Amino acid sequence: MSEKTEHKSEHRSEYRPPREPREERPRGNIPPDTVFIGKKPLMAYATAVMMHFNAGAKHLTVKARGKSISHAVDVVEVVRRRFFQGKLNIKEVKIASETLGEEGETRNVSTIEIILDRMD
Amino acid sequence: MSEKTEHKSEHRSEYRPPREPREERPRGNIPPDTVFIGKKPLMAYATAVMMHFNAGAKHLTVKARGKSISHAVDVVEVVRRRFFQGKLNIKEVKIASETLGEEGETRNVSTIEIILDRMD
Repeated sequence: MSEKTEHKSEHRSEYRPPREPREERPRGNIPPDTVFIGKKPLMAYATAVMMHFNAGAKHLTVKARGKSISHAVDVVEVVRRRFFQGKLNIKEVKIASETLGEEGETRNVSTIEIILDRMD
Repeated sequence: MSEKTEHKSEHRSEYRPPREPREERPRGNIPPDTVFIGKKPLMAYATAVMMHFNAGAKHLTVKARGKSISHAVDVVEVVRRRFFQGKLNIKEVKIASETLGEEGETRNVSTIEIILDRMD
């Protein structure tokens, strides 16, 4: 009888397995020459953009949605001014909308795409 | 006595003088075909953009700085999709930086310019 009770209480405690390291947005959907801007600090993205070009790439598309759009513009401007002293060209900026959510409960979110070219 | 109490309670209520119509950013610096996006609700700006085109204008530049950049993209996308059903063309989107503040304490702020053309 006592055994049974213990067993029960163990089940009642809120045991949670140790968290797995949080997975980043799966890369599967994102083309290789793209950086997607989210809520990380500006320098995290600025470094990613830098490393991309320092590895020899000539092009990069910076994408963001919703409130992160301002952050994306900040990232591009900081990289351009501070790290590349103008040697990074903004080839094109596109704005658009995406529809999120399930049928019946959809909402629109604004998007930005900033296409960068390295000038050499 | 009952009158006095009423009077008192009226004074205790948070009386505020009728608001003067809030002054907009002085138009002096802003060219006529420009809407500057700040912290007002989206529909305030969307209406301003609508009225501009309904008055016969063919072009409009939507400008914003800093965190309002995302808001500016939202305004343009809502006007384009909901009010103009695609009859508003995004001619160009420019991003850049501006330097604010006095000497010795300057900081940079990102800017966006979205140039709109009415298609007829």
